[in-house]
Amino acid sequence: MLPTILDLASLRQAYTAGLSPLKVMEEIIARCRASDDPAIFITTTPEDELRAAARELVERAPEPNSLPLWGIPFAVKDNIDVAGLPTTAACPAFSYHPQADATTVARLRAAGAIVIGKTNLDQFATGLNGTRSPHGAPRSVFNSNYVSGGSSSGSAVAVASGLASFSLGTDTAGSGRVPAAFNNLVGIKPTPGLVPNVGVVPACRSVDVVTIFAATVGDGIAIRRIMEGYDTRDPFSRQAVPASLPSTGPRIGILGGAEREFYGNKDVEALYDAAIERARSFGAVIVPFDYAPFRLAAELLYNGPWVAERLAAVKEFLATNGGDFDPTVRAIIEGAKAYDAVDAFEGRYKLEALRQKTKAEWEKVDFLMLPTSPTTYTVKEMQADPIVKNSHFGRYTNFANLLDCAAIAIPAGFDANDHLPAGVMLVGPAFTDDALAPFADAMHRALNAGMGKDRKAVLPEASRVAPMADEFVPIVVVGAHLTDMPLNHELTRPGGYRVKTARTDGSYRLFALPGTIPPKPGLVRDPGFAGNGVEVEVWALPPAAFARFVQNIPAPLGVGKITLDDGTCVTGFLCEVHAITGAREITEFGGWRNYIRAAGPAA
Amino acid sequence: MLPTILDLASLRQAYTAGLSPLKVMEEIIARCRASDDPAIFITTTPEDELRAAARELVERAPEPNSLPLWGIPFAVKDNIDVAGLPTTAACPAFSYHPQADATTVARLRAAGAIVIGKTNLDQFATGLNGTRSPHGAPRSVFNSNYVSGGSSSGSAVAVASGLASFSLGTDTAGSGRVPAAFNNLVGIKPTPGLVPNVGVVPACRSVDVVTIFAATVGDGIAIRRIMEGYDTRDPFSRQAVPASLPSTGPRIGILGGAEREFYGNKDVEALYDAAIERARSFGAVIVPFDYAPFRLAAELLYNGPWVAERLAAVKEFLATNGGDFDPTVRAIIEGAKAYDAVDAFEGRYKLEALRQKTKAEWEKVDFLMLPTSPTTYTVKEMQADPIVKNSHFGRYTNFANLLDCAAIAIPAGFDANDHLPAGVMLVGPAFTDDALAPFADAMHRALNAGMGKDRKAVLPEASRVAPMADEFVPIVVVGAHLTDMPLNHELTRPGGYRVKTARTDGSYRLFALPGTIPPKPGLVRDPGFAGNGVEVEVWALPPAAFARFVQNIPAPLGVGKITLDDGTCVTGFLCEVHAITGAREITEFGGWRNYIRAAGPAA
Repeated sequence: MLPTILDLASLRQAYTAGLSPLKVMEEIIARCRASDDPAIFITTTPEDELRAAARELVERAPEPNSLPLWGIPFAVKDNIDVAGLPTTAACPAFSYHPQADATTVARLRAAGAIVIGKTNLDQFATGLNGTRSPHGAPRSVFNSNYVSGGSSSGSAVAVASGLASFSLGTDTAGSGRVPAAFNNLVGIKPTPGLVPNVGVVPACRSVDVVTIFAATVGDGIAIRRIMEGYDTRDPFSRQAVPASLPSTGPRIGILGGAEREFYGNKDVEALYDAAIERARSFGAVIVPFDYAPFRLAAELLYNGPWVAERLAAVKEFLATNGGDFDPTVRAIIEGAKAYDAVDAFEGRYKLEALRQKTKAEWEKVDFLMLPTSPTTYTVKEMQADPIVKNSHFGRYTNFANLLDCAAIAIPAGFDANDHLPAGVMLVGPAFTDDALAPFADAMHRALNAGMGKDRKAVLPEASRVAPMADEFVPIVVVGAHLTDMPLNHELTRPGGYRVKTARTDGSYRLFALPGTIPPKPGLVRDPGFAGNGVEVEVWALPPAAFARFVQNIPAPLGVGKITLDDGTCVTGFLCEVHAITGAREITEFGGWRNYIRAAGPAA
Repeated sequence: MLPTILDLASLRQAYTAGLSPLKVMEEIIARCRASDDPAIFITTTPEDELRAAARELVERAPEPNSLPLWGIPFAVKDNIDVAGLPTTAACPAFSYHPQADATTVARLRAAGAIVIGKTNLDQFATGLNGTRSPHGAPRSVFNSNYVSGGSSSGSAVAVASGLASFSLGTDTAGSGRVPAAFNNLVGIKPTPGLVPNVGVVPACRSVDVVTIFAATVGDGIAIRRIMEGYDTRDPFSRQAVPASLPSTGPRIGILGGAEREFYGNKDVEALYDAAIERARSFGAVIVPFDYAPFRLAAELLYNGPWVAERLAAVKEFLATNGGDFDPTVRAIIEGAKAYDAVDAFEGRYKLEALRQKTKAEWEKVDFLMLPTSPTTYTVKEMQADPIVKNSHFGRYTNFANLLDCAAIAIPAGFDANDHLPAGVMLVGPAFTDDALAPFADAMHRALNAGMGKDRKAVLPEASRVAPMADEFVPIVVVGAHLTDMPLNHELTRPGGYRVKTARTDGSYRLFALPGTIPPKPGLVRDPGFAGNGVEVEVWALPPAAFARFVQNIPAPLGVGKITLDDGTCVTGFLCEVHAITGAREITEFGGWRNYIRAAGPAA
């Protein structure tokens, strides 16, 4: 039997155990028929085509799991092209039949994934709540009075209710994150330009991002890696250089007092505070920062000239089909007509000035942790005040694409009364997409709040995100570079840090090299020697600093591999053998520091 | 006696020899009085204030040349604030009295430089020709019928005629480069954001750059380094990470056939071709590239929504003072009213699409060499057809700021008949500002065409730009990493290149390490040994690749310093001594390659 939530690890395990993709598609078909939310899909893949796709996959790649996404069912927001299904952007009159898959969809299908349908959305991806569609409002899987969040509403609900393993959304203001919060899901929002937008109906072309809803961070990251990569046909596609973050003890920015705003929702506030404590328990350094410049940037997205991008995307259609728009969406888009080119450039000046202000905050932190949405509303509440209540949802999401950030939205647990979930986001500088993942995954696992609508589900071990191999490179130091020794600054100044104090294995001998300034030892391995090891320190340096550091090591010293007493083999200082001719052996001291202490300052 | 051209090296030499700043200011005053071009300055520093500034400098820093720009006279384009002098942007009604220096001016004055006056410009920096000013048109120092180029017209003529050691211009479309070409000067156009714009009247704020006219590349770079650096008050200021270029044999992009356009000026075309041959003689690899996407980006600057930035800069003033504008400038700026916010974003989409196309060209080359201006015109010709003829000047300059490039304009020599100069530009990717300089300086020196109006002047040795220390780091390889050996790909794949084949000095011995796969040698220094050295190769790796490379070296190998037979000491492969116990010594083969050849594939 398949579990409620079709996360990648569980489905792969089932395939390995002999389940066929055809059986999985039959199960999807049955679940879709039984679904009690009629507003999830705009178009579903016809049932026979779904079965045919399963058969074709097995012909193409007979071995189970022989493709990265072998037989994995996914749903696609209906502003992203899937060849064979119409693209409507939730505006039936706008509908067209794309000849080709969007780049993202093509890459996922090539990897073996199967499209189960096109999901509902706030029309033209204009909204964060999920009620702005002629196809009805998908509901939170936990309480059908409540909105699902949007604009990628149907995509989130499809995954949260077990109709798909993952889904694609798009995120301009927060559409790939807010619905994750409201449905106990992970939302992966890549850095703008990392994942191509070819084949996506634009909302604000300069800040649109294709996103992923998944059950676990590991699933989402694995899928993103398949979708990402430079595509010259997208003017905003970029050649990414992954950025690193500290693998331990990150400095996490949290909302400071004046900027804490939950619109009266004490439950979400409490869940945010609990997330902060959870982060602290993982060794994070919690740093309140000033959210104000981020908030002011966020406000530009709807209350500034960027809305003209929405008009640019649909202006011909609007000119002929104004009556076919959702009234709220139309009012927002038509607001763009008030802006001229001078306003557009002045908006950019404001944004760049705010970006300068945010830089000062980024100096204090490695990444941010913010509430995904500060509150939630019922469908009725939203429909009664659609602009203002929608804006509440975007308070902490709207800045991320304008300010070129990566974000991962993760579940933050449930309130005790209404059993509604909330979420938090980890937000990092451009191209920290991978670097954010291990911490996000650890936080998610520690929550124990299930996946999607299955609050009891246990996150599979197979999807755990391994702690990042730190981008920093290790180096074992033995003498003058030890902490408090004369050359230690050569490690600290370029940003190095001490990983630990350690010992070599017993085969190493230590010598005081004559005539070195400052005094230095030489470490030599002698496989026949059985000593007690030598005290060393393991430091970590950024790669470019490591390169300079090694270039500056004078003969007779060099770096090679040193075996520590735990059996690991780490790059570190060695000494050419000719230099120890006539040198005093000091192995008996157990390390350079003890020798220096014993020998006194004259050493 | 001071030379005609007051380049930094000559002036510093005179100061060292005992000349006083006061004497230099008297000479400047005398030269300004004698100048036959009345259109260079809009405001000069009053003569008594100039004398006072010289005296104050000597009080502040009595020792000659004890500040980086001790007593160096410079002129400032009159759209850059100098406290104590009005800023007019060549529009008298716009004039205001700034309270503070522009950031650039403040940094230069702090370094000891003295402002001699504010120079004429195309009004509001709108133009590339120098005729759009109520203060008249400065003329080329070589022929007063001809335009000086603009918009930084007066700044260029001031330096070229020996009234200042250097001057500041601004460059949006090419205003810091075209006048350099027409006056036998160097024009330094930094990467946008490297030099702050605080205190500059904007032309197009998102692409304005403060530039330097100087007699030599070395002067210009030294001055830029004093001016540059992050300033949070400028929304477009950036924290630069210098980019490197190959220090030898750069691939230089030149205009391909269809994109060669000199508007009939065979003289400039011949000088461009001569510059290409000069570059080739310096070891450059000449690569014709497709200029079309750069040209199309260039055309957006005036024939697209960016002109709205010019309107944004002066819209309040224009509303009340339309009659105070130069008619051509006003017509250009008012053209912006036709653009709405949708046009602004659509312009950006076009630019980003073109940027993607230029990336394919950048893959082929390290930097570009283009004509600075493809032709020149008399003042009469320009005034008769001011829009079209002006656009000719910008054909190869307009793209540089939109596409985030660094550029250095250098002289390219004189035509035989009219004795008019032309220039070429080296244009590199963002933050190659320093990396472009050695090649630019070498090209300039090889030209032997003097400095500014003094065609016989010899460029001082003291201002020569030293070849860049290549960012790549060297590593000596001995065995399996040699060219065509099994591990050579570990050097080539991450972008390494072979610098040379070399030999160690005679103190090294080589051993075949038993049991290594692929077979590897161990190199050990034995100071008492007198052999013939061992053949090695010196490779160069990017720093991060070097770090990974060293991390992946298995014991018993490591890297230390190897002394080559020319006495240099280079990072390279060494071997722990314990590993050669029982290993066969193969020093007699003279190197690993010879040993492998002799031993056959079984080795």
